[in-house]
Parts: sequence; structure tokens; C-alpha cells
Amino acid sequence: MDTPEPTEPTGLLSRVLGDSARKRGLPPGTAIHIGERKADEVKITVIQYDADGCRTSEDPTLETCARDGETPGTLWINVDGLHQVERIETLGRCFQLHPLTVEDVCNTTQRAKLDVFDDYLYLVVKSQHYRLESHSVEGEQISFVLGKGFLLTFQEQESPLFDDIRRRLRSGKGRIRHRGADYLAYTLLDAVVDHYFTVLEQLGEEIEGVEEEVVAGAGRATVQRLHLLRRELILLRKSIWPLREVVNRLLHQDDSLEWIDPSTTLYLRDLYDHTVQVIETVETYRDLLAGLLDIHLSSLSYRMNEIMKVLTIIAVIFIPLTFIAGVYGMNFDPEASPWNMPELNWYWGYPLVLLLMAGVVAAMLIYFRCKRWL
Amino acid sequence: MDTPEPTEPTGLLSRVLGDSARKRGLPPGTAIHIGERKADEVKITVIQYDADGCRTSEDPTLETCARDGETPGTLWINVDGLHQVERIETLGRCFQLHPLTVEDVCNTTQRAKLDVFDDYLYLVVKSQHYRLESHSVEGEQISFVLGKGFLLTFQEQESPLFDDIRRRLRSGKGRIRHRGADYLAYTLLDAVVDHYFTVLEQLGEEIEGVEEEVVAGAGRATVQRLHLLRRELILLRKSIWPLREVVNRLLHQDDSLEWIDPSTTLYLRDLYDHTVQVIETVETYRDLLAGLLDIHLSSLSYRMNEIMKVLTIIAVIFIPLTFIAGVYGMNFDPEASPWNMPELNWYWGYPLVLLLMAGVVAAMLIYFRCKRWL
Amino acid sequence: MDTPEPTEPTGLLSRVLGDSARKRGLPPGTAIHIGERKADEVKITVIQYDADGCRTSEDPTLETCARDGETPGTLWINVDGLHQVERIETLGRCFQLHPLTVEDVCNTTQRAKLDVFDDYLYLVVKSQHYRLESHSVEGEQISFVLGKGFLLTFQEQESPLFDDIRRRLRSGKGRIRHRGADYLAYTLLDAVVDHYFTVLEQLGEEIEGVEEEVVAGAGRATVQRLHLLRRELILLRKSIWPLREVVNRLLHQDDSLEWIDPSTTLYLRDLYDHTVQVIETVETYRDLLAGLLDIHLSSLSYRMNEIMKVLTIIAVIFIPLTFIAGVYGMNFDPEASPWNMPELNWYWGYPLVLLLMAGVVAAMLIYFRCKRWL
Amino acid sequence: MDTPEPTEPTGLLSRVLGDSARKRGLPPGTAIHIGERKADEVKITVIQYDADGCRTSEDPTLETCARDGETPGTLWINVDGLHQVERIETLGRCFQLHPLTVEDVCNTTQRAKLDVFDDYLYLVVKSQHYRLESHSVEGEQISFVLGKGFLLTFQEQESPLFDDIRRRLRSGKGRIRHRGADYLAYTLLDAVVDHYFTVLEQLGEEIEGVEEEVVAGAGRATVQRLHLLRRELILLRKSIWPLREVVNRLLHQDDSLEWIDPSTTLYLRDLYDHTVQVIETVETYRDLLAGLLDIHLSSLSYRMNEIMKVLTIIAVIFIPLTFIAGVYGMNFDPEASPWNMPELNWYWGYPLVLLLMAGVVAAMLIYFRCKRWL
Amino acid sequence: MDTPEPTEPTGLLSRVLGDSARKRGLPPGTAIHIGERKADEVKITVIQYDADGCRTSEDPTLETCARDGETPGTLWINVDGLHQVERIETLGRCFQLHPLTVEDVCNTTQRAKLDVFDDYLYLVVKSQHYRLESHSVEGEQISFVLGKGFLLTFQEQESPLFDDIRRRLRSGKGRIRHRGADYLAYTLLDAVVDHYFTVLEQLGEEIEGVEEEVVAGAGRATVQRLHLLRRELILLRKSIWPLREVVNRLLHQDDSLEWIDPSTTLYLRDLYDHTVQVIETVETYRDLLAGLLDIHLSSLSYRMNEIMKVLTIIAVIFIPLTFIAGVYGMNFDPEASPWNMPELNWYWGYPLVLLLMAGVVAAMLIYFRCKRWL
Repeated sequence: MDTPEPTEPTGLLSRVLGDSARKRGLPPGTAIHIGERKADEVKITVIQYDADGCRTSEDPTLETCARDGETPGTLWINVDGLHQVERIETLGRCFQLHPLTVEDVCNTTQRAKLDVFDDYLYLVVKSQHYRLESHSVEGEQISFVLGKGFLLTFQEQESPLFDDIRRRLRSGKGRIRHRGADYLAYTLLDAVVDHYFTVLEQLGEEIEGVEEEVVAGAGRATVQRLHLLRRELILLRKSIWPLREVVNRLLHQDDSLEWIDPSTTLYLRDLYDHTVQVIETVETYRDLLAGLLDIHLSSLSYRMNEIMKVLTIIAVIFIPLTFIAGVYGMNFDPEASPWNMPELNWYWGYPLVLLLMAGVVAAMLIYFRCKRWL
Repeated sequence: MDTPEPTEPTGLLSRVLGDSARKRGLPPGTAIHIGERKADEVKITVIQYDADGCRTSEDPTLETCARDGETPGTLWINVDGLHQVERIETLGRCFQLHPLTVEDVCNTTQRAKLDVFDDYLYLVVKSQHYRLESHSVEGEQISFVLGKGFLLTFQEQESPLFDDIRRRLRSGKGRIRHRGADYLAYTLLDAVVDHYFTVLEQLGEEIEGVEEEVVAGAGRATVQRLHLLRRELILLRKSIWPLREVVNRLLHQDDSLEWIDPSTTLYLRDLYDHTVQVIETVETYRDLLAGLLDIHLSSLSYRMNEIMKVLTIIAVIFIPLTFIAGVYGMNFDPEASPWNMPELNWYWGYPLVLLLMAGVVAAMLIYFRCKRWL
Repeated sequence: MDTPEPTEPTGLLSRVLGDSARKRGLPPGTAIHIGERKADEVKITVIQYDADGCRTSEDPTLETCARDGETPGTLWINVDGLHQVERIETLGRCFQLHPLTVEDVCNTTQRAKLDVFDDYLYLVVKSQHYRLESHSVEGEQISFVLGKGFLLTFQEQESPLFDDIRRRLRSGKGRIRHRGADYLAYTLLDAVVDHYFTVLEQLGEEIEGVEEEVVAGAGRATVQRLHLLRRELILLRKSIWPLREVVNRLLHQDDSLEWIDPSTTLYLRDLYDHTVQVIETVETYRDLLAGLLDIHLSSLSYRMNEIMKVLTIIAVIFIPLTFIAGVYGMNFDPEASPWNMPELNWYWGYPLVLLLMAGVVAAMLIYFRCKRWL
Repeated sequence: MDTPEPTEPTGLLSRVLGDSARKRGLPPGTAIHIGERKADEVKITVIQYDADGCRTSEDPTLETCARDGETPGTLWINVDGLHQVERIETLGRCFQLHPLTVEDVCNTTQRAKLDVFDDYLYLVVKSQHYRLESHSVEGEQISFVLGKGFLLTFQEQESPLFDDIRRRLRSGKGRIRHRGADYLAYTLLDAVVDHYFTVLEQLGEEIEGVEEEVVAGAGRATVQRLHLLRRELILLRKSIWPLREVVNRLLHQDDSLEWIDPSTTLYLRDLYDHTVQVIETVETYRDLLAGLLDIHLSSLSYRMNEIMKVLTIIAVIFIPLTFIAGVYGMNFDPEASPWNMPELNWYWGYPLVLLLMAGVVAAMLIYFRCKRWL
Repeated sequence: MDTPEPTEPTGLLSRVLGDSARKRGLPPGTAIHIGERKADEVKITVIQYDADGCRTSEDPTLETCARDGETPGTLWINVDGLHQVERIETLGRCFQLHPLTVEDVCNTTQRAKLDVFDDYLYLVVKSQHYRLESHSVEGEQISFVLGKGFLLTFQEQESPLFDDIRRRLRSGKGRIRHRGADYLAYTLLDAVVDHYFTVLEQLGEEIEGVEEEVVAGAGRATVQRLHLLRRELILLRKSIWPLREVVNRLLHQDDSLEWIDPSTTLYLRDLYDHTVQVIETVETYRDLLAGLLDIHLSSLSYRMNEIMKVLTIIAVIFIPLTFIAGVYGMNFDPEASPWNMPELNWYWGYPLVLLLMAGVVAAMLIYFRCKRWL
């Protein structure tokens, strides 16, 4: 195949789009893995459950998957790692996925979206994690393929995000085993959205830290942190907005109703409320940060005023005094003329000059008091 | 049950979301109390009334509640305190509430919303209080369950918000006892929205105080207060916007019409106008505060100019004078050469130098006058 | 009646809402007068007209009003002063107004709105006046009740706003006597909107004054005026926006068509265009003011630069000179060593030092010229 | 007639609304000329054309006009100058125009709008000209009355705007003579919109000039020009927005279809695209100007930093040196005590002090180098 | 032909509109080439393909084109260079294009748009290139005419944008030869949108460079670059927004369905997602740049504070010291009076003065420490 090698972009664009390169110059429908290779090995987990039980198997041959699909109950296949495109293509053939879907699954620079196909729903969302060490938010793409009786999920790497749900499936607690693939998809989406709150909490702590520093009188480093936080919020916002649209379309479009049970709609509405809450919180954070920068700028101005006041007070008091002292330091010869600095020979000359200086200081202080600088 | 203990978040996120933790990692539909435990004991008040009379009983066994529900008239059950989840669950079973509703009632981090169930309407709103001591706005969640002939309300703690309405019910004044549960729900919502105006009034007073300080020339503390006010308004706005949506949906959605009498719609429209007025007032306040910050920054700049002008005038006048005095303070030996500072021996030397200095001052003053600095 | 006394709020909130207190804690539908008592006495004017003639009577007994209502032609009852609630209630009973309407008429903190009742349209608008002495805009509430063959208007006090229209009714000029109550309502609304232009003209003059001052180099007072103008515009905007909605609903809602003749719709469209023009003018003014503040800040910065340049030039020229003079003012004893300031005894010492100083000045001036500071 | 004399407003409001006074206090439907009297005489041009020929006559008696209207072909009557209201009223009666239309034609403070009457379409637009001498944009109102077979246009004064189209009509080139009044109206509107691009080009040149000045380091005059440009753009934007609405309504409202041929719709869509392009260009210009102001402010700050650095470097170097020189200029008597400034009598005293001074300078320079100020 | 020569505008407007002049004063439907003449010769490439093969011929006589149009398969005619209007007119006649379409093809200042004609779809889009040397984005207009079985594309000059697609057509790889002209149009549009990502990547790199410089403490040049980037983004945004509308209309308007196969709609939806992603990225970049300017301004303020602190500390320490030295440099005659500077003759006079000076320095340092300036 002579398709040109997609160049691996570095830098800002890839951060904005997700974390990986966009393929360019390839014919549409060509599935190649685009993105950082985060996992060493592709790990496929197959979980099959109904109200009575739950069978888990790791990485079976994919032919089995297909056969499993015909048995009753719900089939959940989770794929961690997207770089072995052939395996995803095989899986795609098993479940008769459209080539565009397979391509989208492998391309980790997608915007969150919902595509309705004849046989299944295709959903992409971004999950966000906060890296403490780099103070930055990192997104990961998760694809859902929801069909009749089965759910496929594709993650870039193994993550503990869905561990709770697996545990619940195995233990059989709660409603989850009694309901179908649509409810499972909802629980997984709910876990993704819930994770946003964890990120928001961490960002909230950072913002509070920055707020304290700004109020105490911030230095360069604080402005730096403020800048980074703003940047993270801009990127976070870019990732959550389309998620809201997706959930909204799930709720309101007729053509998605085929795969979503009416009883699940109630839960989806709840999910929608949560995404709205995430968005509003991000916007609130942005407003707060904008306010902090204003406070920072105004406190810089204020401190400048304070510094200048001190300088001005000292300078304005001592410059005239120094001038007076300078005058009487001139070497005019008193002997050459009676007009040449006769003060130098007066009996009270020196004390009078000191008095004059004290008078100047007093006048200045009164002036400053009037101006309310003291 | 092995569900992980929800961690209690501290800080900004919990302030933004309400005042308490979000549960994470729990299966949907699990009712646990999330939020600060504000009340010591759960207090359940049952009021049953019709046009003829009104019976109040505090904390009856819940079985009685259910039976009361079948008698004619309207039943209002108010629950203060949400931490005894079992009692709320029992109540939920009595009135056949959906598990999601019971969960939402207990979770005090909800966004205001309206859920339409088959048998009842579920409404969450936030009531706001202004704490004078901390200059901050605190939200409290109030849930309404409006069914045929009954209304359940759930508050985080006892509050005097509904006292007036209880008094009116008991005294039988006005229309209230002649109308059903929908009208009662409206009066309670109206009390909640009315309380926003009290908060706005207090914030308005604060803003006026800050305005006076800014105009008089604000210090650090004023900027601090300005910052806090802005923050409170951001949070307040986040809580009132969804309330408007809720009232709007109550008014315009067909599926809520079953529980709302057409004659009550007129009152709801009034309520809607009030929430719009609250929102507009919050926005107006924000505009005013933004204007105040601009004024503050510009007055800081202006004062800086004034300070610098004084410094410059003094410096520019005295620095050349000091230089002249310095020149004649040099010790060149007039005896070594006739060119060495002959001025020192002139008859009119000293007066001439003083004249020169006066000339310099005059020139500078004229210069400043031209520049309009004086 | 034991309803709690509504507290009279002072300050910002009441300015934002109109000019008076909101009642709180009262059962809905209780008509009490809320707002400043602007008129001493309530004055009721009854005008009855048709194409043939026009009968005016001041303050008849209200029973007569009702009977008049049955005669042919159009009946216009204008009430100036809202503090005698009983009289308005009597009037309300005459014309079978809903209790909510009577309540709204008396409460002068309404937002402009349109309520459609079975028998009449209820309309509230705000008229604005500009007080020259306080440089502030003051709103007044005007209520319209438009029914079949009659129009009731309620103002807070007597005002010359409708005098022209009364004169036109009496003189019989123009179309007005040939048309019904809807056309009358339109002419009155048109007078209210037209008055906004008077206010805008006065504000426009203020803005131009401020603009001149800002361009000439503004002082503290100018910023103050700019701030007040901005505030007035924010409040004015808050009052005109809902007016537009009201006129728009009058035009487009089917349920208002019953009281509005199709031929009047054309005029209403004109009125709508005028309200849009008012809004756009307010927005344009706000943009202009925002621009002025930017210009002001940038000119403050610019003047600061100018001041600093002067200070720096003077300081940078004279500080080295003063240093040189200071060096030769040192008292090292030339007799103790030949290295101790031999310059003092040179023949050309003093002229050389003066030359050195001139050289320093020249170098500095060239430097400043390169930096384009001179 | 006792209608009050409309006051002639001066200043900002009339600039914002167009260039003339709003009438106030007049009954609706009263046609009086409002606006500056721009033309000395009213000039009426009648052009009658069909595919075969074109007859032009200047200022015929209006009775002829009416008769002409009944002949086949298209009749275009253009009126330059609006102050002879009676002539316009006569014309209005000829073509059976609604009184409101005649009133609107004469009132030059209209917002661009489209009114659909039973027998004709009434359209008002604003044409804009750029006055080079005053660097300001001036609007002129043009009214169109489009009926079956005729088009009336009303301008405030003679202008070369339509000269090209008249020439084309006379020469018979192109499609214009083969089509009806609707196509003529389109060509005229197109000429108006095209003229906006001329204005935008001139403004674009001004902006580029300002940009160069800002980048080179702007003075007061540049900020002034920037301010004026912003103001012109705000006013221009206010005039073009409603024009877009008008063209949009022409395109999409059913009730305008009667006068517009479907084949002309295609051209109107083109016209619509042009108005959108004008709006987007104005918005782009505003963004660019906002950017320029930011750059200007930041470069002012930057230059301030540079100035302060120079001052600080000079001051920080010479102030300590001057102090040292000052110390050795003290007159303590070395004979009174061996502790009184023995340095003055040292053999290497003076060279050592000079060395000390050089050391101080070196230390300061190293410090500045570390701070990256040099 | 006596049409006036269109003037060639220079400067900002032509950059904003595309890169060329708008024609003015011409009758609509007159096709003249407007824009820079970018190509020397017009090059016409004809590609005819179906699933079995692909025939390419460069620049055949246009009569052949027309005949080719009747053969089965898909015909793609690409025109590079628009200045030979007659050739485009001939082509237009061949394919029966409306005169307006031919005019629009030649005018390179179009906004992206979609026109639906009876026999074909007409689409204009802007392709963007980033010129490294000038750091600026340059747009090029590409027109598409999509009819039954044929696609015409018009570019301003030869570009490698479609080379890949031509190669794919020739090699027969992928779906492209199996599908019709609509799919071809999609692939070409996709190439155009994909190229935006290349531009965004380059801009992203520039922004990251600027960010580093700003964080390190930016100079004049950085602000300049920031300004240019902002300008480019404003222009880029102006070009991508209408593209989104065009793709959206292709997807959702019924009247375009005739030329678009339902199976292609899926790909168009993908294309739409990409344009949205481009827009969001541009907006994100703008937010980031706005943030950078804020950081730059705040760091300028911060550095100013630092500079002023150093100046103030030095000045405040040495100015009083210099004053003290000045006092003892006065020449009062100790012999004239015992009050005249007796300190000069004290035994410990000089050491005491030095001690006094040290005390002043210590006091100042303590003061600065308290103020946290050190």
C-alpha cells in the first residue's frame, strides 16, 4: 500500500485535538491507528451476563466473540489499546461494523459524537484525567458501539475507570444484570462523566491555592499557574461541550430510540444533568480565574502605587533638604564681598538653617497628609 | 455492601455544586445521604387541610401518612433533615416514588431540575441565604414531590422559610385552603424565589458600600470585598439559572399539565417573571461590579499619575538647583589659576547664583504650566 | 389582617427593580401599594369619546364608570396615584379584573410584561425620566388594561406624558377619535417609547461632554461621570428590554388578536421598530462609553509615559553632573599627597570640568535622540 | 395646525439615529419632513422603459405620473430631496400609498425596514458615505416603494449612486430593460450595498495606517484616530445589521413573493451574501481595532519599562557614588581629632576613593546583568 | 463595452475579503475576472472515470468536453487559473451554467456559499495556506459545480491539493472509482478541510513559540508576533465559518438531496465534524492568545514593580545619607559662633556621623523587610 506515512505532529494542535496526530492525505475509510501508542499489548475482555450469571474471559479468539453474540443475555467486549488495527478490523467484521466506524475507533483525535447506523449506535467520548506532576489534564478517547444485545467499548489503554462496574456485574448487585446493553452503556458513560468531577475537584483545589496566593500578593510563579489553569480549562471545556450534545441527541433523537429502552431514558436524563453541571462548573471556574487575574493586576497596580508613594515621600522630603545643604556648601568667599553668604558667619546661622530644614519637612508632611498619602 | 466510601471533597467544587460531596463510584439508584449533616434529628411534619380545616401532626409513624393520603383534602408532608435515609426510603415506598427520586432527594448537590414521572412531578430547587458574618451566600436544597392530592417537601434542615405559609394554612386566610396541592407547591416556590430578593438586597447594600469606597479611593480591603462579591454573584447566578428553566418547563410542558390546575398557571407565570427579575438583577449587579473594577483600576492609574507628577515636579526643580549648588561647592583653587571659579570671588557672586536658581525654578514652573501639570 | 409589614428596602436593589420595595411574605393576590407615595391624592380622569365627540370628567364616582362602560364609544379611565388601594380595588370590581391584576397595578416593582386574561389584556411598562440635577434616570410604572371598548391606565403620579393625546382627543384632530381603545393604547405606548428618545438625547449630550473631556485629558470627575453614565445605561437597558418583548408578543401572539384590530397592527409594528431603535441606541451608547474608558486608560498610560520621560531626562542629565561636582567638592588634602585631587590646582582645571560636564550632557542628549524620547 | 414644533436635537443621538431629529409629540401618520435640509430643490426624475426603449423626463407634473403608471412597461420615479412634503403627499395619493408610508419617507431617522402593504412593498435602507475631510461616515436614507409595474425611490439629495444604472437603462445594455421593477429595485439595492464596500475600503486603509503607527509606537493622535475609527465602525454596524434583516425578509417571507419574480430571488440571494460579507468585514475590523488597542497599551507599558530601566540604572549607579563624594565633602576638622576623616590626608586617599567608586559601578553593572536589564 | 474599469484596491479590505478586488459599478451577471492573476496560463484537466478505468487529458478543446459529458461514467474538469474569462464562459455554455455562476466563479472575493440551481449545485469554498516567510495565512478560492455525472472545479492556480486524489483515481485504489461525482466532490472538500489542519498545526507551533517567549519575559518582537497571530486567526475564522454553513446545508437541505447520494451523506457528516473541529480549534487558539496577552501585560506590570522596587530601595537608602553628608559639607564658620556646626570639631564627630548613617540604613532595611520588599 503506497499511502503516504502520516506525519506525527507535535505540540499544541495535538493537545487541542486530543493527544495524537490527525491522518492527512489518506482516503476516507482507511483504518490506521492514529495517536500515541499508550498500551504495549491489546487486551480484549469479553463479559457475557444475564440476570442469572456473568461469564468473563480475557482475550478469546475473536471468532468466539461472534458466536457468543448469538447466545441470549448481554455481551460486553472491552478493547484496551488501539494500535493493532487488524484485530479491531476483525472485530468490526464480526459485528458488521461500517468501515467508517472502524476508522473512527482507531483515530483518537475524534470530537465526541454520535453516529446512528442501521444496526448499531456509534458513540465517541473523551475521558479526562488530571496528571498531578504536570498540572495538566489529559484526555483519552473511549468509543462505544451499542447494538442489539451487545456493547463494544474501545479504550486507548487499560484504566481503572470501569473496574467498579465490572465488580458490580460479577457480584450481581443492583439492577445492572437485570437490564440490557443500553443500561450498561449508560453506567459506563456515567462513570466517564463522574470522572470529570474528580478532575474538577482537583482543579478546584488548584484554583483555591492560586486564589490564596493572589490575595497574599502573587509572584511570577502564581501568574504562571493561573495561566496553566486557564489553559487546562479551555481544553477541558472543548472536550465536554460535544459530550453534552451527544447525550442530548441520545435523549431526543427518534432514531436512537431503537437501541435505548424507555426506562433507561430516565437515567440518561440524569446523565445529561450531570454533563450540564460539569459544563457550568467549568464556566464558573473560568469566571473565577478571570476574576483572579483582575485582582492580581489591580493588586500589582496597588503595590506599585505604594512603592511609588514611599519613594516620592522620601525623595520629596530629602531633595529640598539636600539642596539647602548644598547651598551652604558652596565656597563663595565671604571675604570677597559682604554679599557672599553672610549667613555662614551669623551667630545663629547653623541653627537657623536646621530650623528651616525642619520647617520644610513639616510643610511636606502636612502636604502629604492633605493628599492622604500618610 | 462493599460500595466504596465516597470521599468528602473540600473546597471550591463543593461550594460551586452546592455544599456537599458528590457520590462517585456508586451504582445509580443507590440512596445514600450526600452532604453536610446540618440537622441533628430528622423532623417530619404532616399537615392535612381542606377548605374546612387543617390538621397538623409532628412526626407520626409513616404508615399513618400513607393512610392519610387516601382521605380527601390535601396532604403536605415536610421533612427537615436528610441524613436518615431509611426514613426517606420508607416515605418513598408509601408514596411509590421511583428509586432515582429517593436518591436525588438525599443528594444535596443537585442542579435545580424538574422530572416528570408517571405518578408525580419531582422538583429540586436551591434556596439561598446570605451569611452576614462570612459575607457569603449559602445554598440549601429543597425537593418537592407533587402528586395527586399530596405534596412532599424535603429540606436539609429546619428553616423559617415556610413558617408564614404554615401560619396561613392554620388561620385559613386567603385562597390557600380552598385550592389543591399544586397551589401549595406554588406558594412554597414563591417563598423560595422571594427569599432571593432578600439576598439580593443584602448584596446590593454591600455593592453600594464598595462603590462608595471605590469612589473615595479604595485600598486593598475594598478590592478584596469586590472580589468576594463577584464570586458570590457567580455562584448565585449558577443556582438561579436552572430554577428559571424549571419554572418555564412547569409552564410550557404538556406533561406537567396533569398536576397543575390551569388556574394555577397564572400564578406560575407570575413566579416565572420573578425568577427572570432575579436573574436580571444578578446580571445587572455583575455589570455594576465590573464597572467598579474598571473605575478602581483607572483611579489607581490616575493616582499614580498624580504621585508621579508631584515627584517629577519636585525632582525636576531641585535636581538642577542642587547641581548648581554642587558646582560652587567644588574646591578648585582660585589661587592656582584665574580660570578656577573666579565667580567665588566676585562681589555679586552669591546673589547672582541665587538669582540663577530662581530663574531655573521660574523656567520650570512655566514649563509645567504649559504641560498643564500645575 | 395580620400580614407582616413589608420592610421598605433602601438602596441599590430598589433602584434596580424600579424605585420601590418588593413585598415579601404576603399571600399572592393581596393588593397593597408597594412603592414610594409619589402623589398626594389619587386623581381619576374619565374620558369618553367617539367620532362625534369627547366627554371628560374628573373623578366621578366609580359606579358611574361602570355604567358608562355600557354606552357606545370608547372609555378611557386614567388613574394618577396608586396608594389608595381600595379605590383601585373598586375599579377592578367594576371592570371584573382578576385579583392578580389589581395586585400588579399597585406593585410598582413589576418588570414590563403582558398578561392575557379572558376579558382583557394587562400590560405593564416603565416610562423613564432623566433628572438633570442628579444626572440619573428614574423610572415610573404605567399599567394598561385593554378590554372591549375601554382602556384603563394607572400611573404613579400625574405626568404631562399623555397631555398631548388628551388635547388631540378633545380637538378631534387626526384619526384618534375614529378608532377604538386599541388605537388609543397604541398612541399612549408610542408616547412612552418616544419619551425614551428624549432621555437618550439627554444621555447623548452627557456622553459627548464626557468624550470631550476624555479627549482633552480627563480628571477624576470625568471618570466619575463616565461611571454614572454607564450605571444609568445598565439600568435603562434593564427597563427597555422587556418592553420590546411585550410589544413583540402584542404583535405575534394569537391570543392578543382579539383586542387588537388588524389595522392597528401596522402601527404596532412601527412601535416595535422604535423600541428596537431605543435598544440599539442604548447598546451603541454602551459601546461608545466602553471605548471612552479604554481611551481614558490609554491616555493615562500615555501621560504617565510623558511624565516619566521628563523626569528621566532631567534626572539622567543632572545626576551624573551632580556626581562630578560632588567629586570636586571632596576635601582631600592636596598637600598630603600629589595624588590627592591634583586637578584642583591645575591651571585649566575648572574649565575642563565644565567641558566634561557639557560632554556628558551632549552624550545624553544624543542617546535620548536615538531612543526618540526627544 | 397646533402641533408642537419638533425640537431639532443636536449631537450624539442624531448621529446614532441617522442625521436628523426624531419628531416627538406628533400624532402618528402626520407627514412632516424630519432631518437636515440637504437639497435646495426637490428634483423628480421619471424614467419609463421596456425592452424596446426608455423615456426620461425631469420633473413633470405629478398628474402625468399617475397616467404614465397605466401604460405598459416599468415606471421608475426618483425623488431627490424630501423637504417639500406636499409634493411627496401628492405623489403618495397618485400611487395610493398609506399615510404611514408617506410619513416614513419624510422621516430620515428610520431604521432599515421592510413593510408589506396590500398594494406595494415599502423598503427603507441607509446608504453610507465616507467623508475624507472629517474621517467620518455619513448615512443617507433611501426609501423604495415597489408596486406592480412601478418603483418609487426617495433620496435626501442628488447623488451619483444610481448614475450607472440610469446610463445602463438608457443604453439598453444587459438584462435590465428586459425585466421588471423588482429587478430594477434589486440593481439599486445592489448599488447601495456595493457602496458599503467602498466605505469599508477607505476604513481599511485608515486602519492599516493606524496599525503602522501603533507598531511604530503611537502617540496621542493615533489613539485619537483609533477611537474615531471604532466609533465609525459602531455606527456603521448599527446601520448595516437591519439591512441584512430586510434582504432576508425579502427572500424568505411569503408575503413579499407577490412583487418579486422567482428569477430575481437568485439575485437577491447574491445581495444577501454581500450584506453578510459587509457585516463580517465590519466585525473583523472591530476585532482588529480591539487588537490594536491591546497592542498599543502593551507597547505603552513596554516603553514605560524601558524608560524606567534607564532611569533606574543611571540613578542606582550614580546615587551611591554621589553619596561617597558627599561624605568626603564633609568639613570635619582633621585637626580636632585623629578620627575625623583621616582618609583626607592619606597618601593614596583620592585614588582609593576613585577605585571604590569604580568598584561600586562594577558591582551594579554585574547586578543589572544578572537581572537581564542590560 | 463601456463598463468602468474596476479599481484594484490594495490593503486590508482585499486581505479580509480574500485577496482581490471587488468589482463595483458593473451590471450583475457580467463575468470579469476579479483578483490577482496568480497563474500564467489557464490549465484545464479533464478526467473521465468509472469503476473500470480512468482517462486523463490535459486541455482538450472544450467542445470535446461537452461531448464527453454524454458518455457514461463520471467527468471531472478541473480549471487552474481564472483570468481567461472567455474559456470559462465557453465551459459554462457547454454545461448550461447560469450567468451568475460564471460570474461568481471568476470573482475570487466570494464568501463560501452553496447555491442550488435547477441543474446543478454551485459551491464556493476557501482553501488556506500558511506562508512561512511572511507568517501569514493566504486564502484561495475553489469553486465546485456538481451536476448529474459531472463535477467542475475552478482554482486560482495550480496547487498540489488534489494530487493525491488524482493519483488515487488513476490507481483505482479504494472506493473512489466505484462511486459518482458526489463522492468525488466530498473527497475534494475533505482535502480542503484537511489542509486547514496543516495550517492550524503551523499556527499552533507559532503560538507555542510565542508562549515560551512570553513566559520567559517577552520583548517588543514577541508582542508583534502575538498581534500578527491574532490577526491571522481572525481572518482564518472569517473563512472557515461560512464553510461550516455550506456543509451543514449540503447535509440538511432537501433541495440538495438530488445530487447527493444517501450513502455519501454519512461521509459528509464526517466532513461536517471536521469543519466544526477546525472552528473549535481556531476559537481555542484565540482564547489561548488572549490569555497570553494577559500574561504578558501582567508580567510587564510585575517587572515594572521589580524595577521600581530596586530604584526605590537604593534611592530611599542613599538619599537620606547624602543629605546627612551634605549637612556636614556646609561651610558655616565654627569660629563665628559656638553654635555653628560644633560637631565638626568634636573628637568623635566623624565616627558618630558614620554610625548615624549606618543606623539610617539599618532602619530602612528593617522597614523594607516589614513591607516584604526584600
